[in-house]
Amino acid sequence: MSRVYNFSAGPAMLPEEVLRQSSAEMLDYQGCGMSVMEMSHRSSSFQNILDQAQQDLKDLLALPDNYKVLFLQGGASQQFAMVPMNLMKNGVADYIVTGQWAKKAYAEGAKYGKANKLATSEDRTFAYIPDCADLPVSPDADYVYICENNTIYGTKYKTLPNTKGKPLVADQSSCFLSEPVDVSRYGLIFAGAQKNIGPAGVVVVIIREDLIPEEVPAFVPTMLQYKIHADNNSLYNTPPCYGIYICGKVFQWIKAQGGLEGMQQRNLEKAKLLYDFLDESRLFRGTVDKKDRSLMNVPFVTGDKDLDAKFVKEAAAKGLVNLKGHRTVGGMRASIYNAMPLAGVQTLVDFMKQFETENG
Amino acid sequence: MSRVYNFSAGPAMLPEEVLRQSSAEMLDYQGCGMSVMEMSHRSSSFQNILDQAQQDLKDLLALPDNYKVLFLQGGASQQFAMVPMNLMKNGVADYIVTGQWAKKAYAEGAKYGKANKLATSEDRTFAYIPDCADLPVSPDADYVYICENNTIYGTKYKTLPNTKGKPLVADQSSCFLSEPVDVSRYGLIFAGAQKNIGPAGVVVVIIREDLIPEEVPAFVPTMLQYKIHADNNSLYNTPPCYGIYICGKVFQWIKAQGGLEGMQQRNLEKAKLLYDFLDESRLFRGTVDKKDRSLMNVPFVTGDKDLDAKFVKEAAAKGLVNLKGHRTVGGMRASIYNAMPLAGVQTLVDFMKQFETENG
Repeated sequence: MSRVYNFSAGPAMLPEEVLRQSSAEMLDYQGCGMSVMEMSHRSSSFQNILDQAQQDLKDLLALPDNYKVLFLQGGASQQFAMVPMNLMKNGVADYIVTGQWAKKAYAEGAKYGKANKLATSEDRTFAYIPDCADLPVSPDADYVYICENNTIYGTKYKTLPNTKGKPLVADQSSCFLSEPVDVSRYGLIFAGAQKNIGPAGVVVVIIREDLIPEEVPAFVPTMLQYKIHADNNSLYNTPPCYGIYICGKVFQWIKAQGGLEGMQQRNLEKAKLLYDFLDESRLFRGTVDKKDRSLMNVPFVTGDKDLDAKFVKEAAAKGLVNLKGHRTVGGMRASIYNAMPLAGVQTLVDFMKQFETENG
Repeated sequence: MSRVYNFSAGPAMLPEEVLRQSSAEMLDYQGCGMSVMEMSHRSSSFQNILDQAQQDLKDLLALPDNYKVLFLQGGASQQFAMVPMNLMKNGVADYIVTGQWAKKAYAEGAKYGKANKLATSEDRTFAYIPDCADLPVSPDADYVYICENNTIYGTKYKTLPNTKGKPLVADQSSCFLSEPVDVSRYGLIFAGAQKNIGPAGVVVVIIREDLIPEEVPAFVPTMLQYKIHADNNSLYNTPPCYGIYICGKVFQWIKAQGGLEGMQQRNLEKAKLLYDFLDESRLFRGTVDKKDRSLMNVPFVTGDKDLDAKFVKEAAAKGLVNLKGHRTVGGMRASIYNAMPLAGVQTLVDFMKQFETENG
């Protein structure tokens, strides 16, 4: 067996230790004689897995008591509808559009009320985060929406928008648990699991309790009501049990790395290694404004499409895979989520240096 | 490692061979250096997994060309809303209510139009399937809905309802791929994976192409539109990749057992063993009308609650687990899905005989 360094934007690398444990427990979880995949979601064994995952996540986030943690299905894309369906009371919401995912969320929001594009960075292919210190937030906005880390473009909010008292809703899919976060500044956070915390098929929702509506419009499906899932502790119907189990293992792994402070230190170190090289390189350059650089997704180009393609191909041959950039940006993108070890980034930078020497 | 015989109603047993393969491939799928959980859903490796799973399912079902196979999220519960949201054109649908799940689907359907309860077996705690040969199907019904196998009560339609030309929609969650099926008699079939085909978090939808609407009401979320998923071949957003991979392995396992004919023979043999004993037992008796007995879920009682509890406890001590019945039926329930081997049912019957001798 030979593991590669996988720079995929998602689904993405998981800690090898988590995979080893899961493999070992596949036929018999802790002596109960069955796989976690085979367990009734109403069994005490699974209830323990769910409770532990939830508690570990609360610990990691130092979650205030007035927030609920939900493990749902349908990914971030389904949250694009669930958020307005549940949170639009005045029928108005403000969206800051910093990439394709925020744009999709905005379009979906517009189906359920008046969605305002409060700011956007589309003018420069989303290569920056707009100044959000004093935006004209709608007086009757039910929430202000952001995609906090933009996977495709490699930008991240370093300062949260001034929402002027309105609840902040954040898609944290690609930066979730990558650094400490003050949850009390958000009304709702959601994150698809497949980047930083587990396999595709689980989406974590963290919601301030007072935002969970008692009533929703009649057309909202039962499965798309936060209240149903909150009241049933994510067990209204059969949840994605195996995915939750893997997320739980990742939460424990993060704890063992020193929690979110530990992850931040590790992520800063990895990102610095790569960005420092990009800033001094004669061949490669980063594509986004330095002040808005993501710690998770690092797009870069040579400026020559053929050379980009050559780089991606030669890197893959060395076990550095999935470095091809998104088609809207071109070039390369290295996604260096929590589970990517420093050695992976070091190997990448070493290869970039070598490639620069050979092709510069 | 000691595996138990797991009679859970779902999530339920998976073929041991499937689990062994998954365990072996956890850190490195076929030499690509990563787990299936870590693969980009846009990668050729995952595309191959998806294509193969889809093709194997089509082969097993001898699927007519005018049907699409979709792998979605949200389980059967989300289908309860997706079906009326997409299929109600006249705003009318007929439901046959043969258990709690059909009842929930009916209630959800009533949110989106006029849902008629065409027939029900609620008068005798759903212990039978009503005669559906000549029901007063609504002239403008968009579909007739059934739950084909009733997990909680242990009944199954042996004859499909006469829908008088209206499309038949069937929740096959707990009988999917358990026997040959003539798909051309259905408009839409859906099945949560966690009983017969894989882990929770995947729901398979098989839909006749002409029923996929070009347009849906404006309030229908993008993620709840069949057309979006059909047009994108289940890759509109990140699908539950690992679950699909496991389902694919189960499809291959079913093929190796002789396909749906092979499964049916195996399932008939298992069910006969248990039902024959129930019919001759002095202590135990089945709870449903013989003509409507499910091959998958077998509820039975002693008639004495304390004795039922004693049985469940002693059986568990012998590695026969999750035999407790649903609270609405009481007693015991043995779910003997595809992956339950004949030896498991034989061991159960042997223990029932012993228990009868000791307590009869």
